[in-house]
Amino acid sequence: MSERFFLSQPPRDGRAVLAGDEARHLARVMRCAVGDEVVVFDGRGSSWRARVATIGRDEVGLELGAAATAPALPRVPLTLAVALPKGERQKWLVEKLTELGVARLVPLITTRGVAEATPAAVERLARGVIEACKQCGRDTLMEIAPPRSVAEIARDPGHGVTLVVADRDGGPLEPAAADGRPIIAVVGPEGGLTAEELAAIEAAGGRRVSLGPHVLRVETAAIALAARWV
Amino acid sequence: MSERFFLSQPPRDGRAVLAGDEARHLARVMRCAVGDEVVVFDGRGSSWRARVATIGRDEVGLELGAAATAPALPRVPLTLAVALPKGERQKWLVEKLTELGVARLVPLITTRGVAEATPAAVERLARGVIEACKQCGRDTLMEIAPPRSVAEIARDPGHGVTLVVADRDGGPLEPAAADGRPIIAVVGPEGGLTAEELAAIEAAGGRRVSLGPHVLRVETAAIALAARWV
Repeated sequence: MSERFFLSQPPRDGRAVLAGDEARHLARVMRCAVGDEVVVFDGRGSSWRARVATIGRDEVGLELGAAATAPALPRVPLTLAVALPKGERQKWLVEKLTELGVARLVPLITTRGVAEATPAAVERLARGVIEACKQCGRDTLMEIAPPRSVAEIARDPGHGVTLVVADRDGGPLEPAAADGRPIIAVVGPEGGLTAEELAAIEAAGGRRVSLGPHVLRVETAAIALAARWV
Repeated sequence: MSERFFLSQPPRDGRAVLAGDEARHLARVMRCAVGDEVVVFDGRGSSWRARVATIGRDEVGLELGAAATAPALPRVPLTLAVALPKGERQKWLVEKLTELGVARLVPLITTRGVAEATPAAVERLARGVIEACKQCGRDTLMEIAPPRSVAEIARDPGHGVTLVVADRDGGPLEPAAADGRPIIAVVGPEGGLTAEELAAIEAAGGRRVSLGPHVLRVETAAIALAARWV
């Protein structure tokens, strides 16, 4: 796959502008010249071949060519609600969920959570999504949704949604279970969800599903759940 | 879960000896005292509660108590044959496959592979397995098998084995497909398997399975495949 760049501003009249890190990467690291060809994507499902038209200090002007063929999105719209792990593991979580085609990541607020979804953390997650989209050929950004508590998700999971929660004592996950309906998959912190949190999800119709006999790290459980619906 | 330690030598007559890093970790980092209780596992499927009896310079002597209840192994014996990624990604691969209960990892020798399974690399992978087993409560080590080429696997996948290979142009993976038979799941390098390598796997009865529309990193594809049979 050729090098891909993210357009933070939508193109207009067949022209687009790369800004910030994306422009600096193309201009300074890749040392592009006017006339060079690249691929750009807008994070909303479209990508194009593009030709470098102008190279400024912090901007690269592009003339767009033919639209590239966007790969189809996964069959099932999948939301992962995850109690964020710490440090590097957050980065991995976002990279893998993006590659696997997850539509939306909700930082889950839990009683025993170890990492807070501060604005800086959310900003870092969003950057991770862009990096992964560049790498894996995905044209639609994975959404980083506002943080929500377990109670909030249980109160209003959304219409027609299949709700599941990773739990070592749950039943096996039958992948056909979703029938194409939107899914919210909940992954608690390594200390586990509290009995109250689990009960709230079950009261909302959520099903406890097991991912094997071992104690999975948060990001492992999230990736394993996501992989079921790819 | 309480702190777990790996016994590299099998116990005898209700006694066991922790050696090397494991002993140093317990004695110096955890600053254990005679009489302290820990959990030890032998990597062959057994674990015990144990009491510290002696503390030497590089050894800790233990008296074993009751056998702990080992979690059941996954339903399907699963081998992942993976073209090793580089650096940190190898570590992640091993950690995640161990957590998910994969029985065996075969470093896959491919035309376009980027990392060689040198003895030092294999040693590092094996250490990663032990670390992950300590963390996730797994009592049976994931085996790090000798490296094999695609041709070698295709020539002799083993009796009654279901062989699959990750391929973006493959069909969907129906998880019921294995029927409890042993599985070998093949994941090529990021540059892809060559047409010859793919043909060899298909000639051996291997089925190409897709893991979604995006270009997955090696470790993502391996984890996603493993998760299908958890």
